[in-house]
Amino acid sequence: MKVRLVTNILEANDRIAEQNKKIFKEAGVFVINIMSAPGAGKTTLIEKTIQALKDKIKIGVIEGDIAGTDDAQRIENLGVPVVQINTGGACHLDANMIHEVMSDLPLKELDLVIIENVGNLVCPAEFKVGEDMKAMLLSIAEGDDKPLKYPLMFQESSALILNKIDLLPYTNANLDKIKKDSLSLNRNLKIFEVSCKTGEGLSNWTNWLQSLVKKHKRFIL
Amino acid sequence: MKVRLVTNILEANDRIAEQNKKIFKEAGVFVINIMSAPGAGKTTLIEKTIQALKDKIKIGVIEGDIAGTDDAQRIENLGVPVVQINTGGACHLDANMIHEVMSDLPLKELDLVIIENVGNLVCPAEFKVGEDMKAMLLSIAEGDDKPLKYPLMFQESSALILNKIDLLPYTNANLDKIKKDSLSLNRNLKIFEVSCKTGEGLSNWTNWLQSLVKKHKRFIL
Repeated sequence: MKVRLVTNILEANDRIAEQNKKIFKEAGVFVINIMSAPGAGKTTLIEKTIQALKDKIKIGVIEGDIAGTDDAQRIENLGVPVVQINTGGACHLDANMIHEVMSDLPLKELDLVIIENVGNLVCPAEFKVGEDMKAMLLSIAEGDDKPLKYPLMFQESSALILNKIDLLPYTNANLDKIKKDSLSLNRNLKIFEVSCKTGEGLSNWTNWLQSLVKKHKRFIL
Repeated sequence: MKVRLVTNILEANDRIAEQNKKIFKEAGVFVINIMSAPGAGKTTLIEKTIQALKDKIKIGVIEGDIAGTDDAQRIENLGVPVVQINTGGACHLDANMIHEVMSDLPLKELDLVIIENVGNLVCPAEFKVGEDMKAMLLSIAEGDDKPLKYPLMFQESSALILNKIDLLPYTNANLDKIKKDSLSLNRNLKIFEVSCKTGEGLSNWTNWLQSLVKKHKRFIL
């Protein structure tokens, strides 16, 4: 596992993101940027996704955190290549951080790179990193008012994974309101209801992701 | 240098924060800046705090959100003066935003101003706004790894309110780990365990806050 402290913030983020995208494409990998508030369950979703798909496609992971290597350690335990970025205070990943660490992964051997962004519902949505797709998690324990309060992330994401639905009976969250408000912001949003704890709904997500990786492979080859 | 730019922004912010603090002090109000990840329950805690204290002390609220006025509406329904700041994309409140709206509150009639920051565990901890005290909420549904992953917020806060403890039987979160790791970052942190849903533990928090407001009043008069 490599731990990199990335401190410099690049002005032309989108230009670097385009370079990253080109490098990922030439290597034949599909790249997904996963975003959420802190504690929505990104790392656990990535663990479950790897467990479901690792015999079918080759996966690498880039972990983004303010500090610490807990998440990368959890991924490494599953036997997939992983790089940890410590942003040293920055509340999001940017294209330059990804550019600096992408060659630490064996890109040409991979089909899918999963980037786990810093836990934050705001800035990660503003910074492209060279991904093919953004996906966001929302824990239903966060309540049902998030789409209208953090609209950009819902607009920028292709998939919304509603996690911790096992907690639904113990919260006041209205799942229909979350879905309705999310679709009003982004009518193309693909919505999944899952519990990473019980496993409910996860195969819908992993099957869909696998089909995207395969489609991407056919498209670029 | 880009790092210098960030330093300058923070320095400029801190100067305005000092001005705000002076204005609040001259008006005789105690100011608390409440921070958390999205959906930890800041607005609900503020509602419960107002309900518990509004016959004892005079409270005003400044609401910070990326977009929308839902939170300010909820506070206004309780009959206390409230101002909504929409940051238009910024992931935190800064001193200048507070400076611009503070005169919209009847400061001289108030004992306590509660500022609800944007839901984000990162940048709000870096930007002083002129508060006397920072407090943070952590929903136990976010898991027990947050202190070590978002250390600055735990270091900057005087109080940590562990919310949604009614969900504890349904999660894997280890409350002792949260408390131990939080105190290792900030041994002076005052920790409260509450459920805004059931009301459990709330009076410990509101009694403590009320005593701080009274102490502050005696100190500045």
